[in-house]
Amino acid sequence: MIHSLTLSDVLAEHARSRPLGTAVVDGDVRLTYPELDARVSRLADALSARGVAPGERVLWLGQNSHAVLELLLACSRLGAVFCPANWRQSADELRFVVDDLTPRVVVWEPSEATTATREAGAATGAWVRAGDGYEELVAGGSVRDFPQVSDTEPVLALYTAAFDGRPGAALLSSAALVAHSTSLLVVRQMEPDFTFLNSGPLFHVGTMMFCLATLQIGGVNVFTPAFDAEEVCRLIDAERVTQAFLFGPMIDAVVAVRPQGKYDLSSLRFVSHSAEWDELITVDDSPWCRSKMGGYGQTEVSGMLTFLGLAPGAAGFAGRPSPLVQVRILGPEGDELPVGEVGEICARGKSLFSGYFARPDLNAAKFAYGWQHTGDLGRREPDGSITFIGPKLRVIKSGAENVYPAEVERALRGHPAVADAAVIGVPDERWHQAVKAVVVLEGGASVPAEELIGHVKGLLAAYKKPREVVFVDAIPKRGFTPDYDALDRAHGGGNYPGA
Amino acid sequence: MIHSLTLSDVLAEHARSRPLGTAVVDGDVRLTYPELDARVSRLADALSARGVAPGERVLWLGQNSHAVLELLLACSRLGAVFCPANWRQSADELRFVVDDLTPRVVVWEPSEATTATREAGAATGAWVRAGDGYEELVAGGSVRDFPQVSDTEPVLALYTAAFDGRPGAALLSSAALVAHSTSLLVVRQMEPDFTFLNSGPLFHVGTMMFCLATLQIGGVNVFTPAFDAEEVCRLIDAERVTQAFLFGPMIDAVVAVRPQGKYDLSSLRFVSHSAEWDELITVDDSPWCRSKMGGYGQTEVSGMLTFLGLAPGAAGFAGRPSPLVQVRILGPEGDELPVGEVGEICARGKSLFSGYFARPDLNAAKFAYGWQHTGDLGRREPDGSITFIGPKLRVIKSGAENVYPAEVERALRGHPAVADAAVIGVPDERWHQAVKAVVVLEGGASVPAEELIGHVKGLLAAYKKPREVVFVDAIPKRGFTPDYDALDRAHGGGNYPGA
Repeated sequence: MIHSLTLSDVLAEHARSRPLGTAVVDGDVRLTYPELDARVSRLADALSARGVAPGERVLWLGQNSHAVLELLLACSRLGAVFCPANWRQSADELRFVVDDLTPRVVVWEPSEATTATREAGAATGAWVRAGDGYEELVAGGSVRDFPQVSDTEPVLALYTAAFDGRPGAALLSSAALVAHSTSLLVVRQMEPDFTFLNSGPLFHVGTMMFCLATLQIGGVNVFTPAFDAEEVCRLIDAERVTQAFLFGPMIDAVVAVRPQGKYDLSSLRFVSHSAEWDELITVDDSPWCRSKMGGYGQTEVSGMLTFLGLAPGAAGFAGRPSPLVQVRILGPEGDELPVGEVGEICARGKSLFSGYFARPDLNAAKFAYGWQHTGDLGRREPDGSITFIGPKLRVIKSGAENVYPAEVERALRGHPAVADAAVIGVPDERWHQAVKAVVVLEGGASVPAEELIGHVKGLLAAYKKPREVVFVDAIPKRGFTPDYDALDRAHGGGNYPGA
Repeated sequence: MIHSLTLSDVLAEHARSRPLGTAVVDGDVRLTYPELDARVSRLADALSARGVAPGERVLWLGQNSHAVLELLLACSRLGAVFCPANWRQSADELRFVVDDLTPRVVVWEPSEATTATREAGAATGAWVRAGDGYEELVAGGSVRDFPQVSDTEPVLALYTAAFDGRPGAALLSSAALVAHSTSLLVVRQMEPDFTFLNSGPLFHVGTMMFCLATLQIGGVNVFTPAFDAEEVCRLIDAERVTQAFLFGPMIDAVVAVRPQGKYDLSSLRFVSHSAEWDELITVDDSPWCRSKMGGYGQTEVSGMLTFLGLAPGAAGFAGRPSPLVQVRILGPEGDELPVGEVGEICARGKSLFSGYFARPDLNAAKFAYGWQHTGDLGRREPDGSITFIGPKLRVIKSGAENVYPAEVERALRGHPAVADAAVIGVPDERWHQAVKAVVVLEGGASVPAEELIGHVKGLLAAYKKPREVVFVDAIPKRGFTPDYDALDRAHGGGNYPGA
């Protein structure tokens, strides 16, 4: 265990290395690192007394709070698993989470959905009310030593849309989270004075990953219950925030507050967005902010797998892999595909997850051939960078060839007359399946099917082109992706491999 | 193994991610990442054919060369261990290394010492001559796949002065080296355009650690056989070098070349040193270069354990721990000492070594109480930063108290009349041992023993003050540290605990 470093260990070191350093700001709550360390110890002791043994789960049903970080760190100290659930979900969805995760302790903020979930008698654990109930819990625990925990044990569970239709709790170990944080420290060039405003939801890896990187470098985490543009301005000013969880529409909302003269946002070192925004903040030159922010990632890799900032000027919009992972574009039999061919984005390395909670079959598929399968399609460009194509979801088998709907859809959407497109496989006597496109045209546009087929043929291998095109008014969706089952029913899809 | 990332894996990823990126420059040799990857594969295949199985050792006896990096990466691919030995050593010292490490293959550059070592018939392995012999070896191997290797296996062996008087080969795993490299990426704010000139010896962790961090971010490693100020200027200019292995006297030698108008050194982004130097280069603002460079480290932690750049303005000159380790100041029984007390600097975390090759007793002591013992003394300052005091070496037991000679020596050396000092323990009926100081005064100075004793008493706990002071002309040394055995013989030392 000499090489182990859990999230709890990171905190224990900061409590010694930064005795006066602020760790947490949340409303009236301000905690130094030693204060946070002591509260986490009390909380771990109290959770342990309520049956939270190594491997047991603790669930948070509520908005952002410093309690989220404390519960995560206390679970790390115990070798338990913490899950901050999406509080925006319906009572049915929350009940699924509670039944799936079977937490020993649930800390909840009352809302219609959480109250209904509690009353439905879901799961077994103790329900502790956020706020006063939580503070009583902390106060009841003692500061004490805990046995060392291996950093390969899962510590954080984040629910994601798994590919078999049910949500799954992605389990992330301390080792993976610490590795991912370190990659963010590199790309974001974070230093110990980093102050992060948790203005996005902590149940989402996009906020959580910066919260944890800030912890790792010994910076300050500022919490706000949920995004509010005026409050974000106030907090940036008051706490001299370095970075907040903000993207396009949130940035526009902050600009619309007209903070000039009222709030000083110049401490924010962030990405360029618009002339008004750039005047308010300090445009940052770290790789994370230098180009368009981002790369490619997902919850199951602790956040980001590839970074645009590591590949300035590259052809692939997803950039290049983090220094702590390997990426391969694999075919359906685990074979590495040549440059330019579309296949599944797969990975190995330090920041990958440990599988979904209690889903052995899904996990076996996820780690097939010794690589983690992201379920997303991509391709390696000639310059070595990665292009993300879209979710894999399903494969059409035409002849001996694999056709990924997302790739053909992307080609179709590139045609100026096409507003939206989905691609399905229909049974075909000769080829097993044939590619069929379901297309929504731009308002007023009119284009023959032959032209769209020719357009795809000009971009992709000939066997990927649709044999047939139907025009519809709208494509049924599940979230952001086409509802392929509905499309199959409506347009004669079937004969999929493995089905 | 889904979470494993060996040095060989890092190279395999770069071969895909940076198909046109230069990996290595060494004289006329220029290799892209795919070319380096192919050569490493051939080399691994050839070494494997010569019996280099997992766990076997390969030894390099020569100056800097890209072959050092290739051999390290080939050993990583095989799960073997590579050792670049200090070629400046005598034939006796080199023979010790060969007999201790029992390498399967030795790649050697002819010199008086290496030739004598070879002729002495030391060890068992094949001797391959650097240059043509090495190139034949590479050419004889095939590009092929190798079984996956765990990154927890040792891959690099670097000899250090172990504390029992014999040199020991510190074994570093890929996981430790990758973690350490990442901490350098953070503190040095390295990006993929980083070009490192290996102008220090690669058998020393100070050069090797930047070579490996440059590999990890996908930068360019430039090799030169040994430091030559004019050649360093030429290479910085020709290769647009970002950083070289340079410190005080080497920088002065470069300035003495008077490169103005002859060599453009402005690509070098490095630490401020003197007015002339600062005009030649670009003074860098990364944490590594911002303050006085450095921190505290040793081979057994892969390089640096603490960084000054993470603790701007801190009281402790060693700075604060890397984001990937924990540090504790421990007493002799493994108990954590309070702030301000001197004890052994101990650590846990991602970048620590795996023990010394074939030294089980030493390793048990090294990892006692679940912490890696550095053998160095330090203290935690009230602001949480770390002060390095000096090598521990031995303990004097006076009453029930531990007195570390290095701490008392440091206090004595702080007196203006003292040029050098060493402290030993002499048998004492009442206290078991008494502290005795051996002091060299500055030329012309004269000071009574009582004054020096009072000086120490003003700085340290009373039981640490010398009871007796003897004045000598010079203190016998072993390398940089006092020769305590000689001092004990000359001045009546003895009764040490555990002796």
